[in-house]
Amino acid sequence: MSLGLAGASTASANGLDPNRLFPADPASRTLAAQIYAGIKDLPIVSPHGHTDPRWFAENEAFPDLAQLFIVPDHYVFRMLFSQGIDLADLGVPRTDGVLSETDSRKIWRLFAENFHLFRATPSRMWLEHSFQQVFGWTKRISAETADEAYDHIADCLTRPEFRPRALFERFNIEVIATTESPLDDLNWHRQIRESGWSGRVITAYRPDAVVDPEFEGFAANVETLGALTGEAATTWQGYLKAHRARRAYFKSFGATSSDHGHATARTENLSQAQAEDLFQKALAGACTGEEADAFRGHMLTEMARMSLEDGLVLQIHPGSFRNHSGGVMQRFGRDKGFDIPTQTDYVRALKPLLDAVGLEKDLSIILFTLDETAYARELAPLAGVYPTLKLGPAWWFHDSPEGMRRFREMTTETAGFYNTVGFNDDTRAFCSIPARHDVARRVDCAYLASLVTSGRLDEDEAFEVAHDLTYRLAKQAYRL
Amino acid sequence: MSLGLAGASTASANGLDPNRLFPADPASRTLAAQIYAGIKDLPIVSPHGHTDPRWFAENEAFPDLAQLFIVPDHYVFRMLFSQGIDLADLGVPRTDGVLSETDSRKIWRLFAENFHLFRATPSRMWLEHSFQQVFGWTKRISAETADEAYDHIADCLTRPEFRPRALFERFNIEVIATTESPLDDLNWHRQIRESGWSGRVITAYRPDAVVDPEFEGFAANVETLGALTGEAATTWQGYLKAHRARRAYFKSFGATSSDHGHATARTENLSQAQAEDLFQKALAGACTGEEADAFRGHMLTEMARMSLEDGLVLQIHPGSFRNHSGGVMQRFGRDKGFDIPTQTDYVRALKPLLDAVGLEKDLSIILFTLDETAYARELAPLAGVYPTLKLGPAWWFHDSPEGMRRFREMTTETAGFYNTVGFNDDTRAFCSIPARHDVARRVDCAYLASLVTSGRLDEDEAFEVAHDLTYRLAKQAYRL
Amino acid sequence: MSLGLAGASTASANGLDPNRLFPADPASRTLAAQIYAGIKDLPIVSPHGHTDPRWFAENEAFPDLAQLFIVPDHYVFRMLFSQGIDLADLGVPRTDGVLSETDSRKIWRLFAENFHLFRATPSRMWLEHSFQQVFGWTKRISAETADEAYDHIADCLTRPEFRPRALFERFNIEVIATTESPLDDLNWHRQIRESGWSGRVITAYRPDAVVDPEFEGFAANVETLGALTGEAATTWQGYLKAHRARRAYFKSFGATSSDHGHATARTENLSQAQAEDLFQKALAGACTGEEADAFRGHMLTEMARMSLEDGLVLQIHPGSFRNHSGGVMQRFGRDKGFDIPTQTDYVRALKPLLDAVGLEKDLSIILFTLDETAYARELAPLAGVYPTLKLGPAWWFHDSPEGMRRFREMTTETAGFYNTVGFNDDTRAFCSIPARHDVARRVDCAYLASLVTSGRLDEDEAFEVAHDLTYRLAKQAYRL
Repeated sequence: MSLGLAGASTASANGLDPNRLFPADPASRTLAAQIYAGIKDLPIVSPHGHTDPRWFAENEAFPDLAQLFIVPDHYVFRMLFSQGIDLADLGVPRTDGVLSETDSRKIWRLFAENFHLFRATPSRMWLEHSFQQVFGWTKRISAETADEAYDHIADCLTRPEFRPRALFERFNIEVIATTESPLDDLNWHRQIRESGWSGRVITAYRPDAVVDPEFEGFAANVETLGALTGEAATTWQGYLKAHRARRAYFKSFGATSSDHGHATARTENLSQAQAEDLFQKALAGACTGEEADAFRGHMLTEMARMSLEDGLVLQIHPGSFRNHSGGVMQRFGRDKGFDIPTQTDYVRALKPLLDAVGLEKDLSIILFTLDETAYARELAPLAGVYPTLKLGPAWWFHDSPEGMRRFREMTTETAGFYNTVGFNDDTRAFCSIPARHDVARRVDCAYLASLVTSGRLDEDEAFEVAHDLTYRLAKQAYRL
Repeated sequence: MSLGLAGASTASANGLDPNRLFPADPASRTLAAQIYAGIKDLPIVSPHGHTDPRWFAENEAFPDLAQLFIVPDHYVFRMLFSQGIDLADLGVPRTDGVLSETDSRKIWRLFAENFHLFRATPSRMWLEHSFQQVFGWTKRISAETADEAYDHIADCLTRPEFRPRALFERFNIEVIATTESPLDDLNWHRQIRESGWSGRVITAYRPDAVVDPEFEGFAANVETLGALTGEAATTWQGYLKAHRARRAYFKSFGATSSDHGHATARTENLSQAQAEDLFQKALAGACTGEEADAFRGHMLTEMARMSLEDGLVLQIHPGSFRNHSGGVMQRFGRDKGFDIPTQTDYVRALKPLLDAVGLEKDLSIILFTLDETAYARELAPLAGVYPTLKLGPAWWFHDSPEGMRRFREMTTETAGFYNTVGFNDDTRAFCSIPARHDVARRVDCAYLASLVTSGRLDEDEAFEVAHDLTYRLAKQAYRL
Repeated sequence: MSLGLAGASTASANGLDPNRLFPADPASRTLAAQIYAGIKDLPIVSPHGHTDPRWFAENEAFPDLAQLFIVPDHYVFRMLFSQGIDLADLGVPRTDGVLSETDSRKIWRLFAENFHLFRATPSRMWLEHSFQQVFGWTKRISAETADEAYDHIADCLTRPEFRPRALFERFNIEVIATTESPLDDLNWHRQIRESGWSGRVITAYRPDAVVDPEFEGFAANVETLGALTGEAATTWQGYLKAHRARRAYFKSFGATSSDHGHATARTENLSQAQAEDLFQKALAGACTGEEADAFRGHMLTEMARMSLEDGLVLQIHPGSFRNHSGGVMQRFGRDKGFDIPTQTDYVRALKPLLDAVGLEKDLSIILFTLDETAYARELAPLAGVYPTLKLGPAWWFHDSPEGMRRFREMTTETAGFYNTVGFNDDTRAFCSIPARHDVARRVDCAYLASLVTSGRLDEDEAFEVAHDLTYRLAKQAYRL
């Protein structure tokens, strides 16, 4: 049932104005609300994300507020850290043996005392929406309300209707994709399937560990890939066969896409001899930085060729400078909020791939960016002409009301709506999924209403496009 | 007469709201409409474009809807192609001998069935404006209305009031510039002049074929240039003389500007010996890529020096990666929607030219960009201080409501209005010219109204600036 | 007293709408005005600027309108120059011995005749606000009113209440920072202190002349630094000691910050041996461009280390291509409006500095940019995680209503409000200081009101944040 979501449009609370994110002028606002009313209860299609399939396999209760909303969420702890709060005090585990805080109530209080730091951020919207819509907590978070909120939600978490599968159903999720390495055995996915539960949780193929020569343990990973598939994966042909086999295995657990998060959008279309040569160097740990980069770029083209065979949609997520702080990497490890966007070129970078397969109508490549300057200059012009290319939604730091607005304003005029793919929540914060989709739906409805008010779209079209952006395009683009 | 245009402000139809593109809040909207009312009927000044002078020379009927609106318009066919529709099925001629569709009604139907792809694009606004204001067709284009629309407009096209010269007059065009190569004999222009028709159609000097060492047939083109001018064009001095002669010839057919569409904004100010050396290498086909680029850059400075002598306005249109898809280039040739914008530096690139001639008050250089990031960062600061520099309007992919709004918001505060040059339609789609100018006028009026409403401009000034942006600045900047 | 400022909200005149810069829709506008009413009379905190301490030391009358508003203000004369008006005719002194105009009334008339060039620029807002609020002149500037305005303001300038200290007090300035070279003796600051006047005028440490090997007279400057401090400044250790001593001297005159305006954001963390080697090369005038750049980059890290000791806040102002026109540099010298922004990378450039000191909670580094593309892509993500980093306000060409709006829209969602530092006026135009702060306050109130109207911030929070942005954050970030 979708009442949890639907409630947002009638009930008001701290930060949850029923007309939030709609245009300010009354005519556009009224129209936006009407368009939104028509799509707010549509099922959630979540084709790209990072929820843990174990949740749905085991269906155990989530532990507590801190473990649910703070410790695992780099959006949250990075903001607190930026204001001088220790990651260890927020419970973020250290990799050097020093102990971090484990008292969840203490962690929660520290967060609650500093809740003002999140003013006007999407984290604030997601958190308040989750607290209210998922747990029925409607007061503002603060030092004063911290304990009451903690207890309220702790109580919820003990109840069956707050277990993962119950929430999945309450959130009205039609399908959700997780993301796994080719080296993952997908046993949680197997367990979900074998449980007989009707929730549709699928995997996606994320091969960084076995296509990036600079990934920790690359050579060993390739050996494991060989062992998993029975292919001679340390030969070039065996390696490609192993990918094909593993992709087929992932498809058997519902995968409809692969995902590639390189530092740049570089692609290459090397000869097989050149590729083989780089592959052997990579296994030997002898690649220069440039050679590693070329190999990664070539593997995108190989993956695209495999997609032509097996139909997996290819997602390219470039442009993040990973683990920017040496000190944090050393003490806390990867993925601690220190991935910083960089300038990203697409026009020259994608040409080898596009010259190889860019006109293939059966291939679908979805491009994302952390560099908004590419929207109007490069991405919309590319997606607005190449039949293989579609634009992924505003992503990561840009997955926010202003970011989503800029995405539409800078891509629609050149690429239209139909070269975009609906919304991705791209999150591991399960309880925020309805909130994130709700923000996207509201921003799109606001944009559509403004188009109508300014005479750029007819009203009947706005209703149809809203449905497309919310539901149809995601299913179509991801072949769900 | 301008009634065709004027009608837009009183009649409503699909996509043609009389208040379209005006601000949403009632006060700004009313003011925008008032400002617009004062300038909407001003004559069209079109100082940069790609209409075919043959139309006005021969004044024959335009063939049909597909040949008028689809086959020649890369904005239109690129969007359809991006969704998997073959260019050949849209009638785009192949260069490899394979036949493309020639049944115009069939092409039109294919377009009409897919008209929804253009939602919220400027193409949609231009097309609907043309259908309604030029041809009196007011229903929405769709599979259902395709044949009726086709017949309606086919009927129009047989009538004398839809011939090129009649439309030129109906569109209230005061002057229009076409664009020709120095190798063009300008015979269509001669024929227009000799016909005694009063329409002012002028040419512009676009010397890519004879200044770009990488242009197909560069050496032969230079020889032809010599033959046309009687100069020894394969010597450096003769080559420069030939340019001077050809510019004078273009001036005799009304040219007031030259136009330069290099891949970057690079300029050079080489010694004459260095330039001569590169020129001889270029003729011998022996330039490296770097040398060809340097030669193009130097020729901009030579062209600027000639402008100081003959008064032609110099237009620089950089930043397009031409013919991006190898496959499409091979099968369909140049200019098939695969020109993609790239990052463009102006600050370092223009310094050699500006150090040579940038302070000359009699020289006028108009800068365009496909990289909007340069507006506030580079172009407005440069145009806001160098007396030679002016900013061309939002261009190509940015010639759209959002693109024009961003242009004003990102350039006005630093460069003001008076370092801009009014609107260019830059189009070969003749029937869309009133639509394009109307969009620009509306967006400017909306912007001006918002400035007044927010206390940044007095009301009387807004009316004056609207007139300047619509009419006076284009005439002044292009010396028309 | 702040009545001068407060008047703006009740009196209307040319360009001074009491609701200027507020949102257009009535609900947001009313709320913006309410929020503004709560902060408009707060004292001005001006932690970064270029006013002349001599004004406050000597407290003599300002000379005349031209010397006050035109001759020293590159915002003003660059716009006039861009339209073909000679800098010499505007009284800008030449460095080549040729005389410039000295008749201030004549200069003023030339400006007044061309006042329309400033339409919709921030200069226009600042000038009109100053004329009205400081001098009580409310007519629009034009050829017709030029003489009357000149006489009116000339009369004001003779009166004691228009002397620098009286204006300082009328402007309700709580503290203002000037900017001086380490080679400055700070005698004006000494004179202010010894005068017993209560106005708080502090200095800031701007060491370009002694940290940039390419600065005119670098080696001689370092010798002077040694002489001033009694340190052997031509040895590496002595040079560092001399900096420490000079910073302490600046602190004794109130300095709480240093300021660094390199061409790029490059930092280095060299070994002491490498740094010493570069330093000796620099003294010998033997640095390559690359080495000079590396030395500047390393000195930022050294300055950061000193900040850890002495608590000065480190400001980084990169990205300006200085003195772009060779011809203007030759005839008029530096700082004549020809500093042009360039693309600026922060992610790679700052890594050496950040790896060295980026996690130090006692260090405060404020980043500025002339490249707005870095706001959402690089600066907000960096400031939103590194505890040392804060974002300076929209700067220079972007210190304008649209620029400030873009700053908030592109940084808040990732960095929040509390990683920003309030407003800097960064000006030498003393009379424009209330105007500039007023623009910033209004734009921030408009932004906050829009957040409330769109359900992204609660109303009580908006009032609190407005106070923070106007007053508290500047004091806290600059340790004032």
